[in-house]
Amino acid sequence: MLASNSRFNPLVDKLSLPPVPSVAAWGRAYDGAKGPLIDLSQAVPGYPAHPEMLRLLGETASSITYTGYGPIEGDQSLRDAYGAHVADVYGAPLAAANTHVTSGCNQAFVCAAMTVAGPGNTVLMTEPFYFNHETTLAMMGIKTAFVACKAEDGFLPEVSAIEAAITPEVRALALVSPNNPTGAIYPPALLETIFKLCRQKGIWLILDETYRDFLPEAGQKPHGLFNLAGWEETLISLYSFSKSFCIPGHRLGAITASEAVIGQVAKIMDNLQICAPRAAQGAVAAALPLLAGWREENRQEIGRRAEALKAVMQQLPDWKLDAIGAYFAFVRHPFAGVGSAEVAEKLAKRAGVTCIPGVYFGEGQQNYLRFAFANADVETISRLTERLKNFSLS
Amino acid sequence: MLASNSRFNPLVDKLSLPPVPSVAAWGRAYDGAKGPLIDLSQAVPGYPAHPEMLRLLGETASSITYTGYGPIEGDQSLRDAYGAHVADVYGAPLAAANTHVTSGCNQAFVCAAMTVAGPGNTVLMTEPFYFNHETTLAMMGIKTAFVACKAEDGFLPEVSAIEAAITPEVRALALVSPNNPTGAIYPPALLETIFKLCRQKGIWLILDETYRDFLPEAGQKPHGLFNLAGWEETLISLYSFSKSFCIPGHRLGAITASEAVIGQVAKIMDNLQICAPRAAQGAVAAALPLLAGWREENRQEIGRRAEALKAVMQQLPDWKLDAIGAYFAFVRHPFAGVGSAEVAEKLAKRAGVTCIPGVYFGEGQQNYLRFAFANADVETISRLTERLKNFSLS
Repeated sequence: MLASNSRFNPLVDKLSLPPVPSVAAWGRAYDGAKGPLIDLSQAVPGYPAHPEMLRLLGETASSITYTGYGPIEGDQSLRDAYGAHVADVYGAPLAAANTHVTSGCNQAFVCAAMTVAGPGNTVLMTEPFYFNHETTLAMMGIKTAFVACKAEDGFLPEVSAIEAAITPEVRALALVSPNNPTGAIYPPALLETIFKLCRQKGIWLILDETYRDFLPEAGQKPHGLFNLAGWEETLISLYSFSKSFCIPGHRLGAITASEAVIGQVAKIMDNLQICAPRAAQGAVAAALPLLAGWREENRQEIGRRAEALKAVMQQLPDWKLDAIGAYFAFVRHPFAGVGSAEVAEKLAKRAGVTCIPGVYFGEGQQNYLRFAFANADVETISRLTERLKNFSLS
Repeated sequence: MLASNSRFNPLVDKLSLPPVPSVAAWGRAYDGAKGPLIDLSQAVPGYPAHPEMLRLLGETASSITYTGYGPIEGDQSLRDAYGAHVADVYGAPLAAANTHVTSGCNQAFVCAAMTVAGPGNTVLMTEPFYFNHETTLAMMGIKTAFVACKAEDGFLPEVSAIEAAITPEVRALALVSPNNPTGAIYPPALLETIFKLCRQKGIWLILDETYRDFLPEAGQKPHGLFNLAGWEETLISLYSFSKSFCIPGHRLGAITASEAVIGQVAKIMDNLQICAPRAAQGAVAAALPLLAGWREENRQEIGRRAEALKAVMQQLPDWKLDAIGAYFAFVRHPFAGVGSAEVAEKLAKRAGVTCIPGVYFGEGQQNYLRFAFANADVETISRLTERLKNFSLS
């Protein structure tokens, strides 16, 4: 019964299976011989939610106030709090009216893509790409085109390559910064150049900023795009509360865009699920100002984890740390010519280290593995040295 | 900035605004002169969630267990509990493997439709239709065709009309029983005949059973379709926990289908939002068996509300109760020739009664208003007599 059925929608039928569960299965097949499993696969914060976050979630979820439907665009409390937050982060006149709450950032991407592109249109992406962006567009019948990012450029795209790829069919460019899977952080000047190119060409820039809170510098402004003329007709920014508040299970994300875009997104969200789950909205509205200090501590902690991974990699001459940034590292494995899925499967089963094969982020990424190093603490990361040093395929 | 923008996806740009907020705005414009607003617009239970439900929601939401990502298909506890529940409801061999948890029943419809139909395919619906089904298909580029249901048939479709409408482009028939907006309950024999027609024609039957728990008879089996040969390749059943547990704000629904369909849905859900919110899943898994008696009491209460509305309508010779069933009544207003939106707007602003204009459910429904009578208690419903009797358009 699990075989392909010609009566299914071929756009869905031909999608690959979701990658994260298959990688988790490799981890479950590990016998523990090298010590506890080191899970660097799915991007999940390797520390628990703050006790106050849990208290707030319990308070709102047990309240009758949050049992009813809420506004499609999001609860006013969270739109106010998040609107003020992004105004502060970007130093730009953003507010509640520029905010649409979604059920996680994947859904924010669905809404953003659907707002600007329909079946048969093209959305331009960088490669390596975040696999769910690619499959989301594919299942909606939106075509994709890719700008290859090279290791020697730190996996940042060349502006000339983007420009060459903007054909008349392209409606939007989708970027992820800090990047998933490479970790690459797009410098503000590069983002500004790309924004201006999009504005000039009349295409949208969808910027997924899920990992924005984990930039290397305290209070670092991710970019100045919201201060540029014409941003309202060009930029749609996406965010996730999952990583920063350690609550992916509560499914909460947000879109920052012009009021006109928010109006389009509301029509989509009404069909997709009426509104995002409400109890978590109420809790995060309170937590957003309250836990600012705690989030800053976590940013520093993830910086220490990045340093720990760099130290590990310096002791492994055969492995190359071709990119590292907020949350992720893109690591070149030493087994050139062997598929990345085979390497990752054996690494999981024999060395007890799970990570995502590069090929899941694009056919050209067979030499790479994505390490979600933020998942593991410094001590755990340091144990990678021995695991990887002693690892062989045969 | 709210004007139409040619750079938006035209499939989304041309969607009407979500109807429920506009109706709510009419209600806010009511001055209270006739007494408190009677809200019969959005389908929301007119009684609160059970205290034990709230306690469970608080318990799971404040637990670290539910902060992480869960399985795409849903938490095993809820898949087990709901699989066992539907096995009991339908007297059929259904289980966790036939269950996919979604973030509400609208999302279940998105997943079901996308599983079987892509851009350019056609999904057949009955008219009057649930507006979000129509706009969902439109925004995905799926075409719609309609089988008109007549008042004199109790708003049930004629099988011959369905058969005539199944052209080669049709991939599925989407039905809602008990119906939204009319309240009409499809008899099991009719559903069986329609199912067999779909099976014979090789199209899918998507059956939205959001209001299944409010049938007039205790323990009434909604239909026997899960016992018929070939159901796995024909039937996808949808459900919502929102109405039965009075928790729409927690956004939880479910799909019951073959394992092959569940596998397709998982690929879609992974892209839409990874997984449904988890704390509510844990809470509802516990509440499903625990609150069975309370749900039965509510079913009886909604029956009393239906009787109260019938009594009201008998005193209003100009108003016709053309259909009433679980949750909804489809009421013919006395102002033939006047648009239903004008009638509903004035009814809200002058008489303090909000309901949904018939035209939102199809162009041919201008003579109708949808009353979500389940929203109001018996005493409130009885006050409709005076409000409607004294109501005029001029």
